Amino acid sequence: MISAVALRARIQARELAPEDAIRQSLEAIAASDGELRAFVATNAEGALASAAKGAGPLNGIAIGVKDIIDTADMTTEMGSAIYRGWRPKADAGLVMLARQAGAGIVGKTATTAFAHADPPATRNPRNLGHTPGGSSSGSAAAVGAGMVPLAFGTQTGGSVIRPASFCGVAAIKPSFRLLPMAGIKCYSISLDTAGLFAATVADAAFGLAALTGRDLAAPKLGRAPRIGVTRQPFAGSAEPEAEAALSAAIAAFEHEGASIVDRQAPEEFAAAWSLHPVISDGEALRSLAWEWQTQRPLMPPKISEALSAAEAITPEAFDEARRAGKRARVAAHGFFDGLDAVITFSAPGAAPEGLFSTGEAKFNRLWTLLGVPCVNVPGCRDARGLPVGVQVMAPFGRDATALGVAARLEEALSRTA
Amino acid sequence: MISAVALRARIQARELAPEDAIRQSLEAIAASDGELRAFVATNAEGALASAAKGAGPLNGIAIGVKDIIDTADMTTEMGSAIYRGWRPKADAGLVMLARQAGAGIVGKTATTAFAHADPPATRNPRNLGHTPGGSSSGSAAAVGAGMVPLAFGTQTGGSVIRPASFCGVAAIKPSFRLLPMAGIKCYSISLDTAGLFAATVADAAFGLAALTGRDLAAPKLGRAPRIGVTRQPFAGSAEPEAEAALSAAIAAFEHEGASIVDRQAPEEFAAAWSLHPVISDGEALRSLAWEWQTQRPLMPPKISEALSAAEAITPEAFDEARRAGKRARVAAHGFFDGLDAVITFSAPGAAPEGLFSTGEAKFNRLWTLLGVPCVNVPGCRDARGLPVGVQVMAPFGRDATALGVAARLEEALSRTA
Repeated sequence: MISAVALRARIQARELAPEDAIRQSLEAIAASDGELRAFVATNAEGALASAAKGAGPLNGIAIGVKDIIDTADMTTEMGSAIYRGWRPKADAGLVMLARQAGAGIVGKTATTAFAHADPPATRNPRNLGHTPGGSSSGSAAAVGAGMVPLAFGTQTGGSVIRPASFCGVAAIKPSFRLLPMAGIKCYSISLDTAGLFAATVADAAFGLAALTGRDLAAPKLGRAPRIGVTRQPFAGSAEPEAEAALSAAIAAFEHEGASIVDRQAPEEFAAAWSLHPVISDGEALRSLAWEWQTQRPLMPPKISEALSAAEAITPEAFDEARRAGKRARVAAHGFFDGLDAVITFSAPGAAPEGLFSTGEAKFNRLWTLLGVPCVNVPGCRDARGLPVGVQVMAPFGRDATALGVAARLEEALSRTA
Repeated sequence: MISAVALRARIQARELAPEDAIRQSLEAIAASDGELRAFVATNAEGALASAAKGAGPLNGIAIGVKDIIDTADMTTEMGSAIYRGWRPKADAGLVMLARQAGAGIVGKTATTAFAHADPPATRNPRNLGHTPGGSSSGSAAAVGAGMVPLAFGTQTGGSVIRPASFCGVAAIKPSFRLLPMAGIKCYSISLDTAGLFAATVADAAFGLAALTGRDLAAPKLGRAPRIGVTRQPFAGSAEPEAEAALSAAIAAFEHEGASIVDRQAPEEFAAAWSLHPVISDGEALRSLAWEWQTQRPLMPPKISEALSAAEAITPEAFDEARRAGKRARVAAHGFFDGLDAVITFSAPGAAPEGLFSTGEAKFNRLWTLLGVPCVNVPGCRDARGLPVGVQVMAPFGRDATALGVAARLEEALSRTA
């Protein structure tokens, strides 16, 4: 994989020209994407031109952009035949943040249709017979395959953290709306959250800081970190591989002197977890009304099933789900109380075999609804060598803490693994 | 003006064909819009075709749609030369709600550029020498001039309630996101709220109920309503005309036996009020980054000034403004405690003369930030005969109460005026 931090250091030291850094990515895409299908469009000229301009912390950094995120210079097809050849007028706010930081937007990455669950053709770079996860399939695969140092995704259920776990890359789903959402095709307006894939947690932190102008260096604790562990029993069980990764994380933290406590989820979390689909699909039915009402034959099966089911949601049920979400966000203050961060599964297990499913978001959706920062920490593998991530969460707005704890875990895992 | 309720009754009684109801609006537009400039695009054929389909509670109801709201069958120009001739791919969720309810989307209404403050050419139907207000200028004028029974607008500061007050029409800015926002050009993602203009409060309630499938009949109180009065001293002073309208509303309520209490705004409200522009323009700088960074010569002066100023907002200041907003939303529970609704000014006074300014949102922006339902009640006039509205607010989610209290006030004013 390409480390954005290492690449940036070489560029700053003038060991590498920004254009050459972009060119490396374009070559890697040309070499591997026939097999991986991570990209659905590229703009080599545009990316090289940005690199040549030579300014900003991301100058020379190639970025892949999930294809539900508008780009004025490339098609934005939403993973759907309905939008084949569609060219938006403007770049999304997030794309502009990247351009202003000097990045080269090399291409658009494959997404499930409208960021739901119908898989694109993308394969997992760790094993071509397995799904890369979704809905940000192409972005996770592109970083995992070493095509680009950074890629953008979005998460409504688990569409950033899960594919990152499956592809063995770091990723952050930041606090709700730390990254701008304008110009990103909406599924659920109160859940959709833009996020970032990178080779390592430090690379993700570097990218997020460069995009947002925020200092994301983890606050110095001056003591051992206090880490909560939660297994989200309301979400059902995890596979032994996920449990093994979580245990490895606990052991690695303990080895570092961190204090580890089991933290029970309050009952508000279980209620919110179970109502997440009511908010998500209830809002999607309104966001995607044009597609659903006028283009139905082109809507693939999984999103069609979700939207059909959503037609039965009453206004009362929808309002109650929103209230349950709010109660859970209030309860989150107590949940994190006295802890620096909490760890849980990133996904139920390693990437499932086959390309028919992008896997389950059951261990992610609560945290998306809470709006708290979530980081996938790679480093563990199952017996077949497939990556299995661990998820680190911190309270709302403490993205720096989430990244700091995650970086510490990543390092600890690399020593104990 | 055209009452949607009365029109619907005639259509249901088969006294009027839905197509003829739409045709009346098209004729009214043809007759008056050369002078008023409320519309920037129309689609007679499309609207008549919807009417002919003959289903839904809004069948035969002509709707004007603010031109920042995407329509697949008409241009969507955002009030900006940048988007001249732009045709979105899909209808916005809100437009689809209207179509599903059987409405005829007759045209797109003039908006300030990107729903900020640079005036379009629209005139006030009550006096052509005055502004209709903004940013939903065309929608307020179209309803006020009797061109359409219903029109859609959006409010980030005061862009629904203020133009309604200036044009002498009823309007509701519902609870935050009661109406869907997907496909509406974003200025501020945490403030932008879609709303509805209508001839009377009852017409607005009818339209909102038809769009949302919600029962918006006001709950029966079984006692005299308890109305709070707040003058928002932190926002500066109102003109005598606005004070006179508020006094008339108080007198009308008292005449009806309502109990009236002065309600001081908590200090959290003043803080949130003063930080509204930090959230609004801070978010706009990211939402409109493409336009601002790549099309600057085409950005008009007022929005340019706002975005230039927003460049100085630090992440810390932005986060603090968001927190202040949250504190104010918590404080709103206590503010409304024991009251059915609160009344205040809809605008500082009647519509200013000239078309150089759309007026001030200073008495609206707090309530937009709180996300509570706001209704403009028409009925009062100044010495020149220009309309001056009164604003009714209720707690979040109590849109039915806000509309019920507003309808009562509208009726009471009609008796005492």
